[in-house]
Amino acid sequence: MADTLPRSPLAPAAFPDMPVVAGVRFASTEAGVKYAGRKDVMLAVCAPGTSVAGVFTRSATRSAPVLDCQSKLGGDSGAGAAILVNAGNANAFTGRNGVEATQAVVDAVADATGLPEARVFTASTGVSGEPLPKERSTGKIAELVDTLTPDGIDGAAQAIMTTDTYPKGAAATCDVNGQTVTISGIAKGSGMIAPDMATMLVYIFTDAHIAQPDLQALVSRLNDRTFNCITVDSDTSTSDSLLCAATGTSGVDVTGHDGFADALHGVMLDLAHLVVRDGEGATKFVEITVTGAASDADAKTHGLSIANSPLVKTAIAGEDPNWGRIVMAVGKSGAAADRDALSIRFGDVVVADRGWVSPDYSEADSAAHMKGDHIRIAVDIGLGTGAATVWTCDLTHGYISINADYRS
Amino acid sequence: MADTLPRSPLAPAAFPDMPVVAGVRFASTEAGVKYAGRKDVMLAVCAPGTSVAGVFTRSATRSAPVLDCQSKLGGDSGAGAAILVNAGNANAFTGRNGVEATQAVVDAVADATGLPEARVFTASTGVSGEPLPKERSTGKIAELVDTLTPDGIDGAAQAIMTTDTYPKGAAATCDVNGQTVTISGIAKGSGMIAPDMATMLVYIFTDAHIAQPDLQALVSRLNDRTFNCITVDSDTSTSDSLLCAATGTSGVDVTGHDGFADALHGVMLDLAHLVVRDGEGATKFVEITVTGAASDADAKTHGLSIANSPLVKTAIAGEDPNWGRIVMAVGKSGAAADRDALSIRFGDVVVADRGWVSPDYSEADSAAHMKGDHIRIAVDIGLGTGAATVWTCDLTHGYISINADYRS
Repeated sequence: MADTLPRSPLAPAAFPDMPVVAGVRFASTEAGVKYAGRKDVMLAVCAPGTSVAGVFTRSATRSAPVLDCQSKLGGDSGAGAAILVNAGNANAFTGRNGVEATQAVVDAVADATGLPEARVFTASTGVSGEPLPKERSTGKIAELVDTLTPDGIDGAAQAIMTTDTYPKGAAATCDVNGQTVTISGIAKGSGMIAPDMATMLVYIFTDAHIAQPDLQALVSRLNDRTFNCITVDSDTSTSDSLLCAATGTSGVDVTGHDGFADALHGVMLDLAHLVVRDGEGATKFVEITVTGAASDADAKTHGLSIANSPLVKTAIAGEDPNWGRIVMAVGKSGAAADRDALSIRFGDVVVADRGWVSPDYSEADSAAHMKGDHIRIAVDIGLGTGAATVWTCDLTHGYISINADYRS
Repeated sequence: MADTLPRSPLAPAAFPDMPVVAGVRFASTEAGVKYAGRKDVMLAVCAPGTSVAGVFTRSATRSAPVLDCQSKLGGDSGAGAAILVNAGNANAFTGRNGVEATQAVVDAVADATGLPEARVFTASTGVSGEPLPKERSTGKIAELVDTLTPDGIDGAAQAIMTTDTYPKGAAATCDVNGQTVTISGIAKGSGMIAPDMATMLVYIFTDAHIAQPDLQALVSRLNDRTFNCITVDSDTSTSDSLLCAATGTSGVDVTGHDGFADALHGVMLDLAHLVVRDGEGATKFVEITVTGAASDADAKTHGLSIANSPLVKTAIAGEDPNWGRIVMAVGKSGAAADRDALSIRFGDVVVADRGWVSPDYSEADSAAHMKGDHIRIAVDIGLGTGAATVWTCDLTHGYISINADYRS
């Protein structure tokens, strides 16, 4: 199924050149968890002293590997860390069997790497409700450990794909007091095909030195402005996970350094956008900026209400500058709004000005903007100074076909 | 556009025989507000003493007629009441012009009927953001008043349609201490076609006698279990309105009478189901029953999260018994849940039992249920005694075609 999906029309031209991050090595291989003839398991091993921060799905039905990772974030970083991910089976809604399978994989990685099990993080993505064939992953761990290499991140990006139409990577370097720090990240998502709930996984590596609590605070803050501001269809996976590993191997302390935070933000935003650009059936990348809300939180609530509205998303698919549906989505969001204070722009075209159609409004101009593949919608609520930007894609026949017509 | 939509495959065989309700007369005609060659304006006039209760959209951007109706609910019932509705233009997001247009229509109805303006309720449904051509409605009011008739409710049901594929009516009689009370109701919705936000309007009439505060309390309570438990696509109209008028003409006091409440509940539920059955692109009517939640409110939150999930709705369209997506929707709802306590049935087939696939599960049996056009999904949360039932339809290519491919 995954192999037959055409590459998203919004895909980048190529996978980027990824710089090596000192202190982390990667391996990937074909374990046949579900897919044949492609890589489906990856291992990353990080140097002693690596801080690991993470953010996870807030689903009340999250998977066993997610719960296991969450419990380990605050652990002692002295020994290093390992991350093992399989694609093809999410080990979600698998009861006690799922907990045992997760532990078996953790134990096998700990044995093969010499790391304590408390420093082994795992993730599983793919079909839910089926027992994880854990021996397929564990049977490959010796091979993975033997083939670890600092430049193996490309293969890792391929191995975590499920129904993604392209591998996703982003990188940045940043100057900290004359020394260079490197950040490289990979992601998978957001194809979700029956009966999968195979959504977002993100792994980011840096050779910067930063203590775990500081890294966690930074990643959590940036996550609210990146991955928590994207949506394809409002459906929340039981497996979503982001891990950020800082090996410290560069010897450069980035604690409280704004340049590092900006660089990490850039990598996280690039990866978040790559996930949206691979949204199921997507033909338009949509940026929604909300200003003038009563608070930043209200602005995000309005933005996500617009981004998740099927009527807004189908209008965008139809290249229809349908501002009435924007008003509707603001009105239903639950955040504060005043109909007669709302202003709306499509691209640079002012559509509505404080509650009614702008006297200068040109339907032809806004329709021209809607024909592009990067749609910008700006909404000013007219009440305060709260602001947020969220990103989504359109809702097309492709989404219905992927999720209804095909059977796995 | 409305004329070219095929009748929903879930439509009833025919409009029901509607009993006359003593104390209310109807008229309808062609005013050409937007549509040509069909009725698009209706007037109902109720006898002196009529109590009027209502429930309305909670949208923060609701339309001028909605705000006007809300302000009038508690008024003196001595003079009677009138309801005037036009289709084709929603008079929504029309600024001060919208308020003035609403008042002009109210004034014209008050003049022609002799009712005080405080007893004239109006609604508009159709395109938003365009000024209401109010003279088209007001120019027909004399004709409407001249043609009022007790058996005119069928024409009224036709006149309030926008992109509905069939008119919607439901009726009941009820015995109160040996005397008969009659209830007749009509509804429109839930077709929403660019650039319309032309969703749900409901008008219910009864000859029962009941004071306005008692009627309002009853209607609000029943609304929470009927119209507030249906969803087509999670998008909330700026115009949704329900009015219930009790003329008292039968002389039968129904205050606190359970049989009357049951009969009214039946009419409201029938109309709510008729709206779902006309959901855009619908091919399946879906009933979702949630039990075992921590509270009734939590049960409804879970139910609506399932009913609004695009992945659940596309799976149903594809006749796929995809219980993993049900787990996902429960997990994301925000209400309390425990993955390992969840049980799920499709029809009578137990799919998942306390957190994992039932050992007796037969994919063939559940797939057979999914091929029908009345899908029943039952979820037991396993935590408490909270329960709720909600209704929705599937998400198909038809929805995308109606909302994206066609341009008005």
